[in-house]
Amino acid sequence: LLDQGLIEHLTPVLRRKHSSHKGDHGHLLIAAGSTGKTGAAILSARGALRSGGGLVSLLIPHALNSIMESSLWEAMTIPLPKSDYMFTAADADTALKLAEGKQAAVIGPGIGTDTETADFTRKLYHKLPIPLVVDADALNILALNPKDIQKAEGLRIFTPHPGELSRLLGWSTTEIQENRLEAARQACARFNSSGSKHIIILKGAGTIVCQPGRRLMINTSGNPGMATGGMGDVLSGIIGSLLCQGCEPFEAAAAGVYLHGAAADSLYRNVRVGYTASEVADAVPATLKTLLARDD
Amino acid sequence: LLDQGLIEHLTPVLRRKHSSHKGDHGHLLIAAGSTGKTGAAILSARGALRSGGGLVSLLIPHALNSIMESSLWEAMTIPLPKSDYMFTAADADTALKLAEGKQAAVIGPGIGTDTETADFTRKLYHKLPIPLVVDADALNILALNPKDIQKAEGLRIFTPHPGELSRLLGWSTTEIQENRLEAARQACARFNSSGSKHIIILKGAGTIVCQPGRRLMINTSGNPGMATGGMGDVLSGIIGSLLCQGCEPFEAAAAGVYLHGAAADSLYRNVRVGYTASEVADAVPATLKTLLARDD
Amino acid sequence: LLDQGLIEHLTPVLRRKHSSHKGDHGHLLIAAGSTGKTGAAILSARGALRSGGGLVSLLIPHALNSIMESSLWEAMTIPLPKSDYMFTAADADTALKLAEGKQAAVIGPGIGTDTETADFTRKLYHKLPIPLVVDADALNILALNPKDIQKAEGLRIFTPHPGELSRLLGWSTTEIQENRLEAARQACARFNSSGSKHIIILKGAGTIVCQPGRRLMINTSGNPGMATGGMGDVLSGIIGSLLCQGCEPFEAAAAGVYLHGAAADSLYRNVRVGYTASEVADAVPATLKTLLARDD
Amino acid sequence: LLDQGLIEHLTPVLRRKHSSHKGDHGHLLIAAGSTGKTGAAILSARGALRSGGGLVSLLIPHALNSIMESSLWEAMTIPLPKSDYMFTAADADTALKLAEGKQAAVIGPGIGTDTETADFTRKLYHKLPIPLVVDADALNILALNPKDIQKAEGLRIFTPHPGELSRLLGWSTTEIQENRLEAARQACARFNSSGSKHIIILKGAGTIVCQPGRRLMINTSGNPGMATGGMGDVLSGIIGSLLCQGCEPFEAAAAGVYLHGAAADSLYRNVRVGYTASEVADAVPATLKTLLARDD
Repeated sequence: LLDQGLIEHLTPVLRRKHSSHKGDHGHLLIAAGSTGKTGAAILSARGALRSGGGLVSLLIPHALNSIMESSLWEAMTIPLPKSDYMFTAADADTALKLAEGKQAAVIGPGIGTDTETADFTRKLYHKLPIPLVVDADALNILALNPKDIQKAEGLRIFTPHPGELSRLLGWSTTEIQENRLEAARQACARFNSSGSKHIIILKGAGTIVCQPGRRLMINTSGNPGMATGGMGDVLSGIIGSLLCQGCEPFEAAAAGVYLHGAAADSLYRNVRVGYTASEVADAVPATLKTLLARDD
Repeated sequence: LLDQGLIEHLTPVLRRKHSSHKGDHGHLLIAAGSTGKTGAAILSARGALRSGGGLVSLLIPHALNSIMESSLWEAMTIPLPKSDYMFTAADADTALKLAEGKQAAVIGPGIGTDTETADFTRKLYHKLPIPLVVDADALNILALNPKDIQKAEGLRIFTPHPGELSRLLGWSTTEIQENRLEAARQACARFNSSGSKHIIILKGAGTIVCQPGRRLMINTSGNPGMATGGMGDVLSGIIGSLLCQGCEPFEAAAAGVYLHGAAADSLYRNVRVGYTASEVADAVPATLKTLLARDD
Repeated sequence: LLDQGLIEHLTPVLRRKHSSHKGDHGHLLIAAGSTGKTGAAILSARGALRSGGGLVSLLIPHALNSIMESSLWEAMTIPLPKSDYMFTAADADTALKLAEGKQAAVIGPGIGTDTETADFTRKLYHKLPIPLVVDADALNILALNPKDIQKAEGLRIFTPHPGELSRLLGWSTTEIQENRLEAARQACARFNSSGSKHIIILKGAGTIVCQPGRRLMINTSGNPGMATGGMGDVLSGIIGSLLCQGCEPFEAAAAGVYLHGAAADSLYRNVRVGYTASEVADAVPATLKTLLARDD
Repeated sequence: LLDQGLIEHLTPVLRRKHSSHKGDHGHLLIAAGSTGKTGAAILSARGALRSGGGLVSLLIPHALNSIMESSLWEAMTIPLPKSDYMFTAADADTALKLAEGKQAAVIGPGIGTDTETADFTRKLYHKLPIPLVVDADALNILALNPKDIQKAEGLRIFTPHPGELSRLLGWSTTEIQENRLEAARQACARFNSSGSKHIIILKGAGTIVCQPGRRLMINTSGNPGMATGGMGDVLSGIIGSLLCQGCEPFEAAAAGVYLHGAAADSLYRNVRVGYTASEVADAVPATLKTLLARDD
């Protein structure tokens, strides 16, 4: 079970970082957003900013840049010149170059599944040498060619909800929900078969985190009020930020999942439904402080 | 009287939904906004997001898309390609197609009454098979051809204030205000005469909710501070969200009206006038929690 | 002295309005903003929205419309078609027509002093039949032809700070500050000499409100933290809103000045400097409630 | 050590200003922002607005104007006509003219290092007769021609972090971090050698403030949570605002540094990481009040 006990694995890194003044807390790159779904990009960046990272740069189709800039003052944006309202393959090399010097990346929130965007996404997925959180439509894109999933230069963290895992595995959503542990293990086994490193996070009630060779974790935080738009976007940013701060990937994944649910639980104590994803992001700092303190 | 007693009808659905993790809380479609009145669209969507629904998609004239996206991170927008600064008939079929898979819709907040918008609105009004909340200018548009009002594919919830009902019924506003019950009953009788399903919500002090065969309800929540811009827009979103979560339509209408007034009352306790419609939307989650708890 | 005693004059109207549900709280028209100064327009509208009025419509140069719409959800905007980045004379007739059915108007915040804007402003100033709050650059424009100031169709409320009154009267700012009472009285006498109705509000420490035939008032609320950008814009909206709610003009002017200062005082109790004009606007509702309660 | 003791030097000016109503709290000019980095400009202006200054005008490339205007209501913006998405040399004379009548200026946050922007920056750096805070990319631009640094018309306050000072001095970052006092003194000595007036603020844990002939100060406020994007931008605005309010430059620098850290410390008491730069700006007024009170 993924509960406060696990947080002990996380806290040494974070506590060491934050008790010294000299910490370089890393630089996260997020590729997210398309027309109508810029909110997903903003929420992912907000999740990252609230998790204590150093810098966040948001790659976006250039015509959407002012939306992002007027919503996010603490993150930088990088409008991609050939991507108008969605990511296009012609900007993939630029994006790869921009990832140099970053410690981790996120791809997927709100990007859509247009073929141009799919080509962009696959190129980054395969070639980025740094740990990459793969979320939302990026997973739907990968599901079109599941055999290529193993070919990735760096570690990948997948964050599917049951519908997305259904497309990745070729199981029905019902089969997945009735065999959640088995589905997560299957995905892990399949995508890690040729030595690549994939961590699978199967979202839902009792989110599962698994990686070959590590104990499978089932999350104990979270509540039904989270079944609303944008919650997953925030999670991708949280995990990206923890990776940048030096957490080992499996621990970043597990701790990110727990932290995300615990932040939502802190809101759920006051309201049952109707709290928003950006409020969950904003609840992360106080939640994180409580977790670090408990562990002293 | 529509008071806490009625909330008992509402709560079983909402409580069941939210006590299990697996709830699919639905997907609401809102068609709202035109130049100068995008705030109405944003407030309707915010009302919906704060009422615990799953996903909200906002159909909008495409030139207004960035305004919406920079104001609403948790909702998605769908800019309609042929609608520039207001809805045009050429986008009606696209809109009908986009409604597939949604559980309910809202039309009207801030759309204006241009003839192009009127054609767009009528087409959706007549053909949408799902429950539809018809608000504001959409009511003014229907009032131009009141005989066609009965011809609708699905259930319709009308939310007129006295001036709008005046145009729908051909009574003066004074006649309506002096015979509010009778006016609401008349509208109900007239628009339901050929087997169509219409619920009428006559707004004002003591909002009336009525549908043939159901006990007419008079709302007991609400206060004079609500007589300000945007309050009705929030209500349309709340009702749309309750429909999406599986509430029976009459109960969604009645509970939405009560919840909206009760949220405003929670603000009124601290200030008398000058609270805003977006604050009412933001007060919905805590109000809803109180109502659900009371009923345990 | 303008203190809580005066509030007794104000409260009967406001209290009656707000104790009945049927109040129509009016519709205010604000003409404000130009490139670089849209914040002034937004703050004026926010002052109005927070003072309990019914509806607020903001006339603006059309190229600035999206800035306004993404910042102000509860107000409507009306982008003027021939005014690009500032008001032009070609839109004056349109503006006059749009004022029909409104109870009061505000002109001036952030409009600049370009000759085109000056022509637009003078036309509205002279021809609008409803009470008009004349603020900021609108006063600087009028100061160019002080002899024409008396020719106005309706009541006018001037809100100069000492620098603006200096230009209107042809006195130096020092002369005004050393003879504030005399300066206000002079302005009153001069601009009211041919039967027109002008109320003069001379801002500064101890703001003065005067109108011929009424006791001159010196405000007792307010604090040094108000000497920062945007405070005057909020005041213009507050007075406009009180006019729309049916307050007699001199009482709207006096009560608006007192309320504005008292709202700022409620912030000053917690911080000395660095609170913002929008925070003052947001403090109006609670301040107003306290004033109304005190007077029961 | 720069602690509450130093605040005694600051408070007489600020307290005198704010105990009288007549204070003119000055007008600050900020030149900041470029595509992807408008947040830096907004944060600098927000730091200034929250520190009690009178007016803030933000010079910006014109295509970015609406981003700024929809984010900052209390500041004015001045879109530069020949600067599209970044500052260009062709606007330097315009900028110099616009600085007339201002008491201080800030240059650098988010401007980038393009050659056009570099020419613009150097011209302002050399010719502006008023005190100028030189931050971020403006420092990187000056580092290209370190010999010209002494030639400046007015007092300059440099706010490098170790990486920026590394480029200015030609030392490695490690050398600087291991000899922070010596590095700051060196920079001071070198840039002040021909009678020009330069104050050096070396940021990091224990920020150093030094100027020839003044006791070197080491800051005692601040915490590790500040190692995140945008914090430095806020500092530049705070110092600019204190300069405008009449603080002597070295005291403005020292007090600004202390105030910035103390505001962050007030957030750090509740959360450890994940508070944002705009929250630090918003915490300045309460922090400033505490400091002024303590010193009574």
